[in-house]
Amino acid sequence: MIFTEIIKRKRDDFALSREEIVSAIRGYTDGEIPDYQMSAFLMAVLLKGMNKDETMYLTDAMLNTGRIFDLSKIPGRKIDKHSTGGVGDKVSLILAPLVASCGVAVPMVSGRGLGHTGGTLDKLESIPGFRTSLEYNEFYKILEKIGVAMMGQTDEIAPADKSIYSLRDVTGTVESIPLITASILSKKLAEGIDGLVLDVKCGKGGFMKELKDAEALATSITSVAKGFGKKCVSLITNMDQPLGNYVGNSLEVIESIECLKGNGPQDLMEVTLTIGREMLVMGEKARDRDEAMVMLDDAIKSGGALALFRKMIELQGGNPEVTDDYSILPFSKDKKEIKAQDSGWISEIDAYEIGVVNLLLGGGRRRKEDAINPGVGIVFEKKVGDRVKKNEPLATIYYDKVLDGEIEQRFSSSIKIFPKVIEKPPVILGSRRL
Amino acid sequence: MIFTEIIKRKRDDFALSREEIVSAIRGYTDGEIPDYQMSAFLMAVLLKGMNKDETMYLTDAMLNTGRIFDLSKIPGRKIDKHSTGGVGDKVSLILAPLVASCGVAVPMVSGRGLGHTGGTLDKLESIPGFRTSLEYNEFYKILEKIGVAMMGQTDEIAPADKSIYSLRDVTGTVESIPLITASILSKKLAEGIDGLVLDVKCGKGGFMKELKDAEALATSITSVAKGFGKKCVSLITNMDQPLGNYVGNSLEVIESIECLKGNGPQDLMEVTLTIGREMLVMGEKARDRDEAMVMLDDAIKSGGALALFRKMIELQGGNPEVTDDYSILPFSKDKKEIKAQDSGWISEIDAYEIGVVNLLLGGGRRRKEDAINPGVGIVFEKKVGDRVKKNEPLATIYYDKVLDGEIEQRFSSSIKIFPKVIEKPPVILGSRRL
Repeated sequence: MIFTEIIKRKRDDFALSREEIVSAIRGYTDGEIPDYQMSAFLMAVLLKGMNKDETMYLTDAMLNTGRIFDLSKIPGRKIDKHSTGGVGDKVSLILAPLVASCGVAVPMVSGRGLGHTGGTLDKLESIPGFRTSLEYNEFYKILEKIGVAMMGQTDEIAPADKSIYSLRDVTGTVESIPLITASILSKKLAEGIDGLVLDVKCGKGGFMKELKDAEALATSITSVAKGFGKKCVSLITNMDQPLGNYVGNSLEVIESIECLKGNGPQDLMEVTLTIGREMLVMGEKARDRDEAMVMLDDAIKSGGALALFRKMIELQGGNPEVTDDYSILPFSKDKKEIKAQDSGWISEIDAYEIGVVNLLLGGGRRRKEDAINPGVGIVFEKKVGDRVKKNEPLATIYYDKVLDGEIEQRFSSSIKIFPKVIEKPPVILGSRRL
Repeated sequence: MIFTEIIKRKRDDFALSREEIVSAIRGYTDGEIPDYQMSAFLMAVLLKGMNKDETMYLTDAMLNTGRIFDLSKIPGRKIDKHSTGGVGDKVSLILAPLVASCGVAVPMVSGRGLGHTGGTLDKLESIPGFRTSLEYNEFYKILEKIGVAMMGQTDEIAPADKSIYSLRDVTGTVESIPLITASILSKKLAEGIDGLVLDVKCGKGGFMKELKDAEALATSITSVAKGFGKKCVSLITNMDQPLGNYVGNSLEVIESIECLKGNGPQDLMEVTLTIGREMLVMGEKARDRDEAMVMLDDAIKSGGALALFRKMIELQGGNPEVTDDYSILPFSKDKKEIKAQDSGWISEIDAYEIGVVNLLLGGGRRRKEDAINPGVGIVFEKKVGDRVKKNEPLATIYYDKVLDGEIEQRFSSSIKIFPKVIEKPPVILGSRRL
């Protein structure tokens, strides 16, 4: 097939056949189709869209450029969750051991932070010794042994996604529902899972700023995943303000452990437990969401979930003492308390700006090659809807050596105080079950 | 400026500023912007369009990557014509000496044939010795001396267009009104002309198949050219069947000379004279189109136009004897007469198919690097609207060595005979003066 003709057909708004899409993805992965043709194709897809069938063909073609884990010998259903990325989103760290401790295997392949968003791998790697770059065999053995393992994407998993994502990043073709759907699902389906709970973050700090876009992505992923015979539920959750009270890599490990100890903040626990319930029902360990809720509560109260987290840390080379001794984690030596300039109610903590502040402090990366400083971050004393008095502490910034005046200014500007009562915003904004 | 942001703005349907467009074109020409970003940008332009201002900025940016001829010392107005390309379109060969013989300087930079369309340079180069790859100084001197010179595009002229066109060709981004406008005008404005008559070919063998597309291109080029302070008229002419009776490089040189001798076929002469009249008025040598018509007629009848063509051939290294002795031209030795299979009226001679037949005979090129065989082609005995009897000759195919059965079949299928009267189709379909 001549790829230029395929580009023209998409440009002219025709639906592509499976053969056309497979030849595009194979050709690109084999190096026969150059970047400059693929990027024109991606722009045509972004602007003309793809229907559900095309998105399935694309996902399948990308999935089949790499290895698909065979977890069939591990008993029971294998369920994973995926978040589209946000600020303070440490849900995976809590949820993976929590759900696994209830008997559902969680084979989790995660990503790194980029731009203003954090990444699960970066957070886990704050724990001294913790290795996320596992070989498949090691990943499999840990999963088989304790029902949970967390690793980074390897070159084996959907290599087409890796190269296409890099190209999208520099050609203005990231914001496309079918391309995002295929990117997420080609990686997740490679894990050999039976079901997936998707957490579509919506709001200032999320990838999707508008509810309608988040809904469109949730609908697309849910329907395509079902087309592959997988169970899938997509939740849309609020990402206008950071999730939980801690932002930063080491800091988020602490907050995750506190959640497993039963001390988690309301918004973070609500997201975690809502996803967890879906995973237990999907994994056929709970009859319904009510029963699942009881199981999750028990797993926290009994210490079972925390014990499993410790076990996983140990098996992945990390120091499990971290759950009792946070001083093991790397921390920046310097901190500054930020105080309220007015009395009133917190009306906004702009998650995007907070993510950028953490990035500027050194806790994130602008480019994939950048190193990060796990010790910096922010701990919030107040969240949106909380009442605050003038000069009361709002948050503490953890920084290294010098706190740049511009960063502090940016941080302060991201928090707004209103003279009248502000209600706590909803945490769960919607869901797609289809 | 970050080019990815510029791509996104066009993708999101914003009008780009002059600075953004200049930075895109300069960045690409300097090699700072890679092909894969430019192709995504071009697809966004194709699908989202550009307004008149953006198209002007684009044309200007591309024009300014190269040299702009300074013809100010050559007295009088300098006027050129440009055709969007067709089959049997040898109008430039006739028109350039004809208009110049009436006192309007014609500095013509032409192109080569590609795909099913022919190119002025290829036709001229059928004349033994004729050189089209002139240096600017030589071109200038010939123009100064006789008021007409015809050369190929050089690396000096709008180099951005050359590289962008190559990229468009392989990325499905050719069919865009603003990109075509900027491509044509950046080259034509580089000639240092005062005015331009554009011949937008419309129909099966033209680049624009639909009248509305041809009208849109005519409107765009006319308005952008005027924005640059140039006089411009765009004509839309019929390209459903080949123009004139001869198709093929040497053959079209013969037909051009016959036109200059006053023996041209009706359709070809109507296009030539209609454009010529506009050029004489634009060049301020005729008060109106009626006076221009008389001047053009006189130039043919007096032999002045033919004499100037001979002069130009001589100055560009060619053998001027060609005007009296066609055997100087390279010709394929073999030919076959194609006869009518039915009686009736010719209802169609598909110009695209005829162009492909000439290409398959060896008279055109699939890729820019291909060599061509100037000696092959087709001479038509009948055109659309002509009455024909069964077994009467329709055309003669000039081929080299073997006439492939599939080519002959393709040729025959491209001609349709209808049992009832078919009217001669119109030659001029419309115009844009604004």
